[in-house]
Amino acid sequence: MSDGLNMSRRIRRTPYTDRVEKAGVRGYSVVNHMLLPKAYSTTVEEDYWHLREHVQIWDVSCQRQVQIEGPCAEELIQLMTPRNISKATMGDCLYLPIIDGNAGLINDPVMIKLSENKFWLSIADSDVLLYATGLALGRELDVEVSEPDVSPLAIQGPKAEDLLANIFGNHIRNIGFFKYGWVSFEGTKQLIARSGYSRQGGFEIYLNGSHLGAALWETIWDAGQRFNIKPGCPNLIERIEGGLLSYGNEMTRENNPFEIGLGKFCSFENNVDYIGKSALSKIAKQGVDREIRGVLFDGSPCPTCATPWAVTVGTAEVGKITSAIWSPRLQGNVAQALILLSFGTVGQRVTVKLPDGTKRRGKISLLPFD
Amino acid sequence: MSDGLNMSRRIRRTPYTDRVEKAGVRGYSVVNHMLLPKAYSTTVEEDYWHLREHVQIWDVSCQRQVQIEGPCAEELIQLMTPRNISKATMGDCLYLPIIDGNAGLINDPVMIKLSENKFWLSIADSDVLLYATGLALGRELDVEVSEPDVSPLAIQGPKAEDLLANIFGNHIRNIGFFKYGWVSFEGTKQLIARSGYSRQGGFEIYLNGSHLGAALWETIWDAGQRFNIKPGCPNLIERIEGGLLSYGNEMTRENNPFEIGLGKFCSFENNVDYIGKSALSKIAKQGVDREIRGVLFDGSPCPTCATPWAVTVGTAEVGKITSAIWSPRLQGNVAQALILLSFGTVGQRVTVKLPDGTKRRGKISLLPFD
Repeated sequence: MSDGLNMSRRIRRTPYTDRVEKAGVRGYSVVNHMLLPKAYSTTVEEDYWHLREHVQIWDVSCQRQVQIEGPCAEELIQLMTPRNISKATMGDCLYLPIIDGNAGLINDPVMIKLSENKFWLSIADSDVLLYATGLALGRELDVEVSEPDVSPLAIQGPKAEDLLANIFGNHIRNIGFFKYGWVSFEGTKQLIARSGYSRQGGFEIYLNGSHLGAALWETIWDAGQRFNIKPGCPNLIERIEGGLLSYGNEMTRENNPFEIGLGKFCSFENNVDYIGKSALSKIAKQGVDREIRGVLFDGSPCPTCATPWAVTVGTAEVGKITSAIWSPRLQGNVAQALILLSFGTVGQRVTVKLPDGTKRRGKISLLPFD
Repeated sequence: MSDGLNMSRRIRRTPYTDRVEKAGVRGYSVVNHMLLPKAYSTTVEEDYWHLREHVQIWDVSCQRQVQIEGPCAEELIQLMTPRNISKATMGDCLYLPIIDGNAGLINDPVMIKLSENKFWLSIADSDVLLYATGLALGRELDVEVSEPDVSPLAIQGPKAEDLLANIFGNHIRNIGFFKYGWVSFEGTKQLIARSGYSRQGGFEIYLNGSHLGAALWETIWDAGQRFNIKPGCPNLIERIEGGLLSYGNEMTRENNPFEIGLGKFCSFENNVDYIGKSALSKIAKQGVDREIRGVLFDGSPCPTCATPWAVTVGTAEVGKITSAIWSPRLQGNVAQALILLSFGTVGQRVTVKLPDGTKRRGKISLLPFD
């Protein structure tokens, strides 16, 4: 973090922003034209240790929902993704790559099937709303594409389940990983999923109704006191170590799903028809020459990776680091990088070139890091 | 400005960011997933006076270009906008509302016709790239939609013409308002338009080739010294006074072009076919009940408008302010607001409710302010 963020209506506040400010927010990112809190009073390292032991409340309203509803809803979503969604059932959260005609990644949302004709795509940072709208209009599909008033609040960390069972009842303990259920709150029914952008376990409440934001935050905050709750946010150390990828960082439209480890979500069955299928089939047959890997490198804590850093072996550039940070647990810098497969073996020695021109010794690691 | 902005690759740097940092940037906004410098060492008021008298260099790379190329390029753009683009010629910059099926505003770019089959849309803050891609795929149009490596640099203020004529030659003086021409720079041909997000006059150079960013900035910076050049950015006081609207602030998909004063860009001719035409025709026939107005209100300098503020007359809410700031020239707070037409007469007395609950006396004004 370095410079200030200028506020305006265009950088949308969330139903929780008042509470986030009260909790002492110091820094934000901007995702989907909305504020994502990224720093409170503690350091990213303190937050990391806390997240691994206790429970945190995260304003992730910026995970906007693209609601697709109508007789052609499933057809439209299938058009956008190589993942076969025909077997999805109510209760499932499905991680989906969305690709363009060249198999380039447009987004990697989580799909929630609310009924046979109604779905939410919980998106990363690109306007899937406009892509889906354009496609639906172009194909003249009988479907409505909209952004509902739904603002996810994440409760993450090992104590999340106990905290939420305490508030909403023990039935939430039965929700499986990447499944969703329902809770009652102030006379409304709210969707709750066992999911979230950390590897420490937890839930996301897809709050439907901005006017309930303050009450939901306060309820969880108050009940969370005996679980040592703190305000938090996606933690860069934990995310990189955990192998969680970030759209716009590890993947852009320059990348296809196979490079990013999403090949398992690509279907080539005859009955699954989507945009980019022929381009993706070709890639699947030819294979890719680079893949996502971890890189662990030495020296003092590295700066923020705001443009990709070259990874070299001898004189050859073998990849690019796209996210990196010092890990206090591994006592080294951890990074995610696209690496040429021929240099992607675990333990491969590499050199990392930092923006100031200095070089660091590193080695290839699996993701997630141990 | 208040809180920090967390950096990552996803919030893209521009070809000028290194120079912007050297020039002492203190604050940013994020537009189209890219940094927009918003504050340097001086106050917004100092910048305002300077912009009105001298010349400034603005990094507006975030005005990304959506390039649409191919036999169906014009057809695709016409589909997206109610403005009749059939008479556009090379050399024109055309301001275009882009609307959805309900006539809701998706963006308000400037179109540049590069050849019969190649156009740029210089966009505000929404992923028109994805909307156009979706539409083109859905309609199976023979067209390529891409984001070229083009990063506009704006030179704004009354001395902009003298400065740029000094660097690139006197022929740039012949470029008319919202027209473009070409300049030579380091062996390349670069597009230059008489345009920009201020009312003080100036140009935008659509730099094609990131590697030339530092050199272009330095060239203008050095030559600008004798014109008292300063680094700057779209100035909120000047923008509001000048009646320049901001997508995401004054208009969203909740608004149609007629409310925002863009009715003059809406064609209903038989040969102009676009998405949302029937919805827009209906609105044109029925008329709108609210329109954009200026509001001048008293009291001390107002805070940042991050969520719309109610404007009332008696007990009735008659509109919402979406942008506001203290004007040192008018010695009052200037604002832009959507106002019910029946209360939109110039001089109408209104009350403005600030987020802290206090009320200010104000009156309706024309845009631009005198």
